[in-house]
Amino acid sequence: MVSQTTEESLRIIPLGGLGEVGRNMMIIEWQGKILIIDMGFRMPEEDMPGIDYIIPNISCLKGKSRDILGILITHGHYDHIGAIPYYLGRIGNPPFFSGQIGKAIILKRQEEFQHQPKMRINLIEDGKKFRLGPFEIEPFRQNHNIADNFGFVIGTPIGNIVHTSDFKFDDNPIYDKPTDYEHLAAIGKKKVLLLMSDSTNAEEPNHSLSEKTIMENLDEIFKNAQGRILTATFSSLLNRIQQIIALSEKYGRRVVLEGYSMRTNVEIARRLGYLKMKRGTLIKAQDASKYADDKLTIMGTGAQGEERAVLMRIATGEHRFFKIQKGDTIIFSSSVIPGNERTVQYVKDQLYRQGALVYHYKMLDIHASGHANQEELKQIIELMQPKFFLPVHGQFSMLVNHARLAQGMGISENRMVVAENGNIIKITKDTIGIEKAKVPANYVMVDGLGIGDVGEVVLRDRQNLARDGMFVIIAVVDRQTGKVRGSPDIISRGFIYLRESQDLLREVRRRVITIVERSAGSGGAVNWVYVRDNVRNKIGDFLFEKIQRRPMVLPVIIEV
Amino acid sequence: MVSQTTEESLRIIPLGGLGEVGRNMMIIEWQGKILIIDMGFRMPEEDMPGIDYIIPNISCLKGKSRDILGILITHGHYDHIGAIPYYLGRIGNPPFFSGQIGKAIILKRQEEFQHQPKMRINLIEDGKKFRLGPFEIEPFRQNHNIADNFGFVIGTPIGNIVHTSDFKFDDNPIYDKPTDYEHLAAIGKKKVLLLMSDSTNAEEPNHSLSEKTIMENLDEIFKNAQGRILTATFSSLLNRIQQIIALSEKYGRRVVLEGYSMRTNVEIARRLGYLKMKRGTLIKAQDASKYADDKLTIMGTGAQGEERAVLMRIATGEHRFFKIQKGDTIIFSSSVIPGNERTVQYVKDQLYRQGALVYHYKMLDIHASGHANQEELKQIIELMQPKFFLPVHGQFSMLVNHARLAQGMGISENRMVVAENGNIIKITKDTIGIEKAKVPANYVMVDGLGIGDVGEVVLRDRQNLARDGMFVIIAVVDRQTGKVRGSPDIISRGFIYLRESQDLLREVRRRVITIVERSAGSGGAVNWVYVRDNVRNKIGDFLFEKIQRRPMVLPVIIEV
Repeated sequence: MVSQTTEESLRIIPLGGLGEVGRNMMIIEWQGKILIIDMGFRMPEEDMPGIDYIIPNISCLKGKSRDILGILITHGHYDHIGAIPYYLGRIGNPPFFSGQIGKAIILKRQEEFQHQPKMRINLIEDGKKFRLGPFEIEPFRQNHNIADNFGFVIGTPIGNIVHTSDFKFDDNPIYDKPTDYEHLAAIGKKKVLLLMSDSTNAEEPNHSLSEKTIMENLDEIFKNAQGRILTATFSSLLNRIQQIIALSEKYGRRVVLEGYSMRTNVEIARRLGYLKMKRGTLIKAQDASKYADDKLTIMGTGAQGEERAVLMRIATGEHRFFKIQKGDTIIFSSSVIPGNERTVQYVKDQLYRQGALVYHYKMLDIHASGHANQEELKQIIELMQPKFFLPVHGQFSMLVNHARLAQGMGISENRMVVAENGNIIKITKDTIGIEKAKVPANYVMVDGLGIGDVGEVVLRDRQNLARDGMFVIIAVVDRQTGKVRGSPDIISRGFIYLRESQDLLREVRRRVITIVERSAGSGGAVNWVYVRDNVRNKIGDFLFEKIQRRPMVLPVIIEV
Repeated sequence: MVSQTTEESLRIIPLGGLGEVGRNMMIIEWQGKILIIDMGFRMPEEDMPGIDYIIPNISCLKGKSRDILGILITHGHYDHIGAIPYYLGRIGNPPFFSGQIGKAIILKRQEEFQHQPKMRINLIEDGKKFRLGPFEIEPFRQNHNIADNFGFVIGTPIGNIVHTSDFKFDDNPIYDKPTDYEHLAAIGKKKVLLLMSDSTNAEEPNHSLSEKTIMENLDEIFKNAQGRILTATFSSLLNRIQQIIALSEKYGRRVVLEGYSMRTNVEIARRLGYLKMKRGTLIKAQDASKYADDKLTIMGTGAQGEERAVLMRIATGEHRFFKIQKGDTIIFSSSVIPGNERTVQYVKDQLYRQGALVYHYKMLDIHASGHANQEELKQIIELMQPKFFLPVHGQFSMLVNHARLAQGMGISENRMVVAENGNIIKITKDTIGIEKAKVPANYVMVDGLGIGDVGEVVLRDRQNLARDGMFVIIAVVDRQTGKVRGSPDIISRGFIYLRESQDLLREVRRRVITIVERSAGSGGAVNWVYVRDNVRNKIGDFLFEKIQRRPMVLPVIIEV
């Protein structure tokens, strides 16, 4: 890992997706000219209450709008496109380059945002090259779990860079072309200076499941189902959606689509010809009762146990049209995002309680990740024979294990870097290294209309409020006498149930009066900041002693 | 599932552990005489901020203290004993019956609580019967991941009940006796009216791993480790702790125990002769630097990524004595509790970043659950040949799948019930059924010194506060003029960073004054409740419109 300072060097700066799953965004820079790959978001972590999404920090692009030649979109998943509407204006609305599905999903989402500039999205095609400044770009089709997924060969003045996108190799995909190994081999033959490859499943042994296997298992379930079939999956897993529609048609079932995102994505894919179904297959929820149970499939979101998703609402009896009935077959066709296991178990239990049959991907191969396992990762290294290697997309442990895999394939340690968001990776014809300096790559949090305005302080307050609630004390002090007028007001939420704690509150009021009057009645100028601190600390300690909780104590003293 | 009303019936009431993992507690009642099995707690769920533990609701025992003949403790894990100190006084301090390890752990924990009555804990032994009123009880040894684990045969006037405790079958345990199939078969031969069996792993196929296999895999890691070995496990997994100590001795490593619970449990087990180690194996953390890296094992808690546990403090560089260094080998020897996957990944990444080698149970069989998989569950049904079957200990989906397994073994549906906490299961010589009436079995939450005082309202407030924070508005109104004095005070936390939102606050103040003065200045009596509601709603809507967040708005109006 050697660093050089020649001008003939390429800079690669990941702003998201390295050291995490999601929020993918990467800058490729040659002599000040900038190419961007993807602009995704990720979901907030558990200790970030109220946050909608986390997006990349793009402050290193400030003042460089004119140098951004274009933004390459690998595919239409939100972890690759979700940050676009938040930043489009700030980066000077550069041209985008995307496949049809990605383009349609991006444009559909733009409708939800106000005051957005009109986007210019150029369609890309497999093998069809185009030039942006010093870069010559060739998109190549890659299999994933959504159609129109592209890796990129980026020709630069010092050699070719290959970005794999999210991918897996599938020789038997359903309603999609199999992996084009010849094309990949041809790319490899033209010499690859740097391979950037998807690490999401770098810790998973063997080969990923083929969609064909999944189709066979799903077919078995469909064949045996006596009643209704309810499927829960991501609305972005268009391949799986296609499979479920096809199987429903095979077994004479009509399909109800439930959930806004599900309907939107199906509509987009159908319009563009990526989803094939017969006329009349889709029916409306309100017409479902006209069909026998074994002639019905209900397809919705909620495989993660999301609170407001279709499956959850059906499971808890809150759905407008559907309730679980004995004999229903439920198919969870999606992996569980780490952290969601508990809620998924909750939904499963609810379904079991109501007598449903539940199929989950851990019981049967009815879901495959869209990502290459170790054998495929080795294979793409073999095909590309890159000089340098940079694992992308994944938690740090995945990047490290991907790098080890590459070492096993003969790429020595000085020909690779394990980098993280904010690192500046410098590549010359002969060297790859990480610069000492970093660019800011911290989380930018989206909460409602606020972008980045929820910072550490606000988040820490939310965590504290969540833990033991808050306790506001309002004392009105007579300026002349230094006495507290009446009884201090107390507003508390999330601490204890006040009605059942009258003794405690009486004692708190008594103590507040004593503290305030001792300070205020002393004659001379009163240091109200000191008094407030005193109330906060003493009442805080008192509450902790009595009940071992530490609510946020907020004293307000009003002089009249 | 037929219910009868004869007097010759037994009532079984699970108060915890059925439909969940943890919080195990069960009542067995014959003509008003009560036997209790276990009194455990469970950890709070994600949407229960600030809650320490969840314990069973024992209100159905109110007024029945004199009828409680005794409490049988299966083993010393907190999900079986953790609720004892909260309820001991309320149930009249009845006699307990436990193995040695369980007794010692219970008594150790009692020291942390004040004003506890002196406990009477009778020691039980494998095969040694004792009588409590109408019940004749025979404990039988079962393998688990802690020693001194007992199932119970409970002889009742209508037949024998068998409770398996948490268990697995292990023919090659380490430092423990293998499963005693002969004893189990003998119990079965005496006719079993009801089998209550552990469902925790009822969804896992095949046989659980033997501790011997785990020992071999751990040995391999120890053999190859070049530097220090750090192990993270639960302090309650005494078997695993024994293995790590034994392997350390085999490879000439001294052992540092880190963490209070780890040291306490090791001390207890050692004193009772359940943990074997050489004199001098254990060293203090401050002496560790005297030994070469490859002569050192550091054993701590933190395999779940717990915030304050040893491993987390070492990984984040906050530990007093140890920091991660290149060449360290880290062994996570514990399964991940659902919901903790994300934090565990975070710790793993931190360790990788610092150059450690990480072994996790998903990469290698270095951890086994202490619970029977499907093949063992079938085997115990085979051995017991019970007339009736009740799956216990597990999420509802696990109970259902355990029941299906039993059906596959020839136990027909009318000979079993799938019950949940609060159900009253009635058993006669010929029937098993669930009563229509239920006893309260909801969550009782422990928060600091409060038991059950955090209810739905407080919890919902905490969730709301966490999501968007709070916004207190204090307006002082002159009673005579109806005018707001000065500018309303605003206290906000967890909403936005106030210093950067001065315009917003100014507008809020202006609106508050308008709303209040319009109401107060109208002459006549002022309905302050109405005015407060008005401020809450209008300011709430204004904030949402401006920033799409809904903080808890709390208006205070003070008349002077």
